[in-house]
Amino acid sequence: MSANLQKALAEVSEKLDRVMDELLPSPLQMANKVISLHSREEDNDSVEAKPSGEAKVMEAMRYSALAGGKRLRPFLTVESAKLFGVNPDAAMTTAAAIEFVHTYSLIHDDLPAMDNDDFRRGKPSNHKQFGEAAAILAGDALLTYAFEVLSHPSVSADPNVRCELIRSLARAAGVRGMVGGQMMDLDAEHKTMEVDEVIRLQRLKTGELFAVSCEVGAILGKAPDAMRSRLSRYAHDMGLAFQITDDLLDVEGTRTATGKGVKKDKAAGKATLIGVLGVERAREQANTLAKQAIEHLTPFDNRADSLRALASYVVTRKS
Amino acid sequence: MSANLQKALAEVSEKLDRVMDELLPSPLQMANKVISLHSREEDNDSVEAKPSGEAKVMEAMRYSALAGGKRLRPFLTVESAKLFGVNPDAAMTTAAAIEFVHTYSLIHDDLPAMDNDDFRRGKPSNHKQFGEAAAILAGDALLTYAFEVLSHPSVSADPNVRCELIRSLARAAGVRGMVGGQMMDLDAEHKTMEVDEVIRLQRLKTGELFAVSCEVGAILGKAPDAMRSRLSRYAHDMGLAFQITDDLLDVEGTRTATGKGVKKDKAAGKATLIGVLGVERAREQANTLAKQAIEHLTPFDNRADSLRALASYVVTRKS
Repeated sequence: MSANLQKALAEVSEKLDRVMDELLPSPLQMANKVISLHSREEDNDSVEAKPSGEAKVMEAMRYSALAGGKRLRPFLTVESAKLFGVNPDAAMTTAAAIEFVHTYSLIHDDLPAMDNDDFRRGKPSNHKQFGEAAAILAGDALLTYAFEVLSHPSVSADPNVRCELIRSLARAAGVRGMVGGQMMDLDAEHKTMEVDEVIRLQRLKTGELFAVSCEVGAILGKAPDAMRSRLSRYAHDMGLAFQITDDLLDVEGTRTATGKGVKKDKAAGKATLIGVLGVERAREQANTLAKQAIEHLTPFDNRADSLRALASYVVTRKS
Repeated sequence: MSANLQKALAEVSEKLDRVMDELLPSPLQMANKVISLHSREEDNDSVEAKPSGEAKVMEAMRYSALAGGKRLRPFLTVESAKLFGVNPDAAMTTAAAIEFVHTYSLIHDDLPAMDNDDFRRGKPSNHKQFGEAAAILAGDALLTYAFEVLSHPSVSADPNVRCELIRSLARAAGVRGMVGGQMMDLDAEHKTMEVDEVIRLQRLKTGELFAVSCEVGAILGKAPDAMRSRLSRYAHDMGLAFQITDDLLDVEGTRTATGKGVKKDKAAGKATLIGVLGVERAREQANTLAKQAIEHLTPFDNRADSLRALASYVVTRKS
């Protein structure tokens, strides 16, 4: 990864964590508030012994939202917003809302009835840490909260802009976007798929949220539709290149690792472009997509260099 | 139930079903669309054999959203909107969005990790019919779709109104509302609770969504805050009276039924106001709340008569 890209990603991650930490007040702060308003000092113990439902769900929300990660979607939002001179704080708050949606999807995807993953980013997955009920509710609450955050005037003084952000995010995350793709993905374990179907699955499951992460920059900046559409296409091509590279790393991981690769069983059962195209053609496809992604950015000046660098990086990364 | 109230409820249910049916295009319509756009006739079989992820989730969404029910929340919205001369179509679309949120909460509540209910309104619960993964995703998609619907100009020409609807619904449904209440309720099975705590639980779990169902009428009608606040208090008191009566019917059901009441085990393990107050005082409390609810409506003329009738009905109903 280029030093500039690395620096830009790190900056976004750091600021995002601060904003998300503020948006999700910790249960301890909530409990203290309750104590100071209603309780005498000797009641402190009982408050601590019976954390409220909200505090428990909030703790589970924070656990997953503040667990790090690549923060690619927030990066896309921040960098796209820069192209149109959007207020950086507004961009970061919007990025946090999208990351809440991404986090909710990971929590629900990890559930036993879904992908059944016990770990996420090296830590126990949400339901392993808090139980299934709290994990389901934490996901629900993060999804709900994303729309509350976007409805707030601090995101944009123009309520039409806020409505358009909400509409776009809801479409990308809903039944004709991420949720539909997740269902296809779960069903894919039991069937063979054509190239077109696998591409459509990825487009829905991960592509739409990548796309809206860029589009919100154009929405916040009231950019012409043509610009928004270019960013959307950039994100879809970059996102698919990213996904194919993920799958390639999976396959290579299972080859070079000491024994059985961690994700081998899962990759085997899932529809990937490697499965239908083979390793070589899949790699070619990823490189073509990365090039295409960069071409969509032609009208933008050097303010789009970070987005260009990201597209190059996603196909060359080694982990 | 008075004939007028019965008629008003039936009218709302019927119109709501039509609006929800339109908002949730059936998978068959979606499949036909795909066929007419992309496939030759001989492909029809394969399309039917492999319904897309979206179609599967949409079918699950429709199954629960169009399963009937009392439709109390839509009724509250429609009747509150009438007080301020709101366009009835806008009110009904808003009502549908809130009912999508209510439906999602029922689907997730029924999951094995939550209340673990196999039946809902006499039919298999969503996860029994479609599997747990589809049920989780159908709930997620309904919640997401509610905000998409509210962001649409057909709800209100004024984007500030749409943002306020979204903000209010998200707060009522989120971690400091319904979701927090649901978590408290799940935890309540293992502890004894004080009267205050049980009231707070009900306020969060069901009260906030009742309240916002009324408040959106005032928001759509750009009514003064004092009117919105009266409707909110009406809904909270009516809602709690409704909940207590539900619990009373549960207890009586277990007494008069031939053998073991359906909900006996659950009621026994859950914190209800009957558990902490006893049957007699709980019944008095419900009656007091119903009276209070009606008093909040004092400034409204006879256009609020249906809301008044509902408050009287909820404490006298026999089922």
